Amino acid sequence: MQDILEKKNLDFAFFHNLDSTKINPNIMYFAGYNGLGALVIPKRKMPFLLAPKMEYEKAKKSMVKKAYAIDKKKFFDSVKIVLKRNGIKGKKIAIDNVNFNLNFYKNFKKELKGIKTKDISLDCLRLRQVKTGEELQTIKKGFDYADKILKNAINNFGDFKTESDVSGFLEYETKKLGFDVSFPPIVASGSNASMPHHEPENVKLKNGFCVIDFGIKYKGYCTDCTRTIYIGKPSNKEKDIYNFLLNIQKSIISNTNINDNCGKIYENCVKSLGEYSKYFIHGLGHGVGVEIHELPNLSLGSKDKIMENMVFTIEPGIYFPKKFGIRIEDTILMKDSPIVLTKATKDLLIVG
Amino acid sequence: MQDILEKKNLDFAFFHNLDSTKINPNIMYFAGYNGLGALVIPKRKMPFLLAPKMEYEKAKKSMVKKAYAIDKKKFFDSVKIVLKRNGIKGKKIAIDNVNFNLNFYKNFKKELKGIKTKDISLDCLRLRQVKTGEELQTIKKGFDYADKILKNAINNFGDFKTESDVSGFLEYETKKLGFDVSFPPIVASGSNASMPHHEPENVKLKNGFCVIDFGIKYKGYCTDCTRTIYIGKPSNKEKDIYNFLLNIQKSIISNTNINDNCGKIYENCVKSLGEYSKYFIHGLGHGVGVEIHELPNLSLGSKDKIMENMVFTIEPGIYFPKKFGIRIEDTILMKDSPIVLTKATKDLLIVG
Repeated sequence: MQDILEKKNLDFAFFHNLDSTKINPNIMYFAGYNGLGALVIPKRKMPFLLAPKMEYEKAKKSMVKKAYAIDKKKFFDSVKIVLKRNGIKGKKIAIDNVNFNLNFYKNFKKELKGIKTKDISLDCLRLRQVKTGEELQTIKKGFDYADKILKNAINNFGDFKTESDVSGFLEYETKKLGFDVSFPPIVASGSNASMPHHEPENVKLKNGFCVIDFGIKYKGYCTDCTRTIYIGKPSNKEKDIYNFLLNIQKSIISNTNINDNCGKIYENCVKSLGEYSKYFIHGLGHGVGVEIHELPNLSLGSKDKIMENMVFTIEPGIYFPKKFGIRIEDTILMKDSPIVLTKATKDLLIVG
Repeated sequence: MQDILEKKNLDFAFFHNLDSTKINPNIMYFAGYNGLGALVIPKRKMPFLLAPKMEYEKAKKSMVKKAYAIDKKKFFDSVKIVLKRNGIKGKKIAIDNVNFNLNFYKNFKKELKGIKTKDISLDCLRLRQVKTGEELQTIKKGFDYADKILKNAINNFGDFKTESDVSGFLEYETKKLGFDVSFPPIVASGSNASMPHHEPENVKLKNGFCVIDFGIKYKGYCTDCTRTIYIGKPSNKEKDIYNFLLNIQKSIISNTNINDNCGKIYENCVKSLGEYSKYFIHGLGHGVGVEIHELPNLSLGSKDKIMENMVFTIEPGIYFPKKFGIRIEDTILMKDSPIVLTKATKDLLIVG
């Protein structure tokens, strides 16, 4: 980040989060802090956090050891005082436009008179898309835990009566290990599976394909995996369509190479799906990191390129409106060749 | 909303959400839709949703029956086409600055040429802070469910070994009923309780006060409640400080009247806390609705006024750094007098 500030001739980067229901992914990424307040990264000096009193202890425990307790009510006054105390006088500030809402921006410009802001949201995303060795260690551990939880749920599937039994189990097992889910688990059975973002309902699991999309957050890093199982007895036609999608998914993964264009990978998937492509109604994949959706973006028109140490999903799906849905999603770590981080079997599992 | 558009001479209101990990609270409030896309409320015509194909079925099931399937990749093109098809030509657009990030705003201005935007975020929050009869029915049901789950957890407390056992149980019970939590439950024992936003850890529950802050989301509406129990045997001094805080909390509630100034209520709490007020390091309360934190804001300097049918928390706390913490939080519905929606007992429960 400091290299970017140097190159773009900016005095410091400023990230903030004043909403306790949210996390600023860049503060998480640069400081390992998921609380309220702000992170300042000066071009040349040590970075520091500003945290409200109630989160000051947490801020001091973060990767950025330097923290100031501030009064949230006097946020901008505190920012000005702390900047002054650190001898930061420059007025050219790097900000993340995606995590700046219009209201805050107007106040920011009014309070910190004479500043000029430069959007570095894309620079942050580009930094984050290629993982370091330390990040990869954490990410791999997260996937190991998530795999175990998902396998456990699938092995115990006979005990579940409703979609929410399944999602509840997934969350409970996650929480018991002291982790959070990276998003509310999707469990969609019968015709519900035709909606890729279906929310689990407290209704009986229906016969047919059941899509389970689940991930955890381990030390700030997300995991993501989808398996589709079958409740009841699948027809040959159903087995065929599942295996058709599975073979496409496997083939996309094994054909993914460093320097590939992500829009092209998506297009190849559409081509392979042939007449089924009209039932493929979302992107093919996305990066995974401190956010569940990051770069690279594997969808129509994307110009992103696959690079070594990127972590991203490959998740083609087929959705027949009001009938059924199938999605098979792995998360891949790109090395010389792709390494699949999601280990649960992809053979069609038949339960019930 | 349409009255506000009329009064402010605006042509239509535009709300959007393009991040599947988020919900736009105003789309939830006005349309009962928590998916991706946009909501357009014209000054005089019927409102409608624009939803990506993958969420079109869900959009059609929302309170706003009129929905268009759009291509997320061509978001602005779709918006322009749908506006045209609905004969909406005006250029004065009401937007919610808090849910508009700088990047989106720049594209919005560029794509919808010649528009003028007016921030109506505060108007939305003001509408949302006073609940309708229908909303109150939903909210009351949500609190009934949440109460049962919390009581269930407290009754089974002997079974839990770690903080994450407790939070896992709370989430599991919530999920089993088909609901989501309104925020990751806070379970903080021993010295962890001195951090109001402590995240549950996979470590043994420590003796001493244990703060449990928990809420669910029922049909889009949040609940919020905190109880502090005691693990082990409290000293008389500990019992005294708990009851000191409890009496203050009860007295604030019973003295809350329509037209009261919220900043004043906070100040009265600080006065009652006396020498302990320096250990009270957050606001006294907040409105609860489609978001867990809404108006009114019961904290220092707030000019909000208590009105009939507001739903808000009263949650004083005392936090001794690195030692212990106590918080007692009820959610109140304001009628002629305050009605407490959170029914779990506030007497100090001693477990273990």
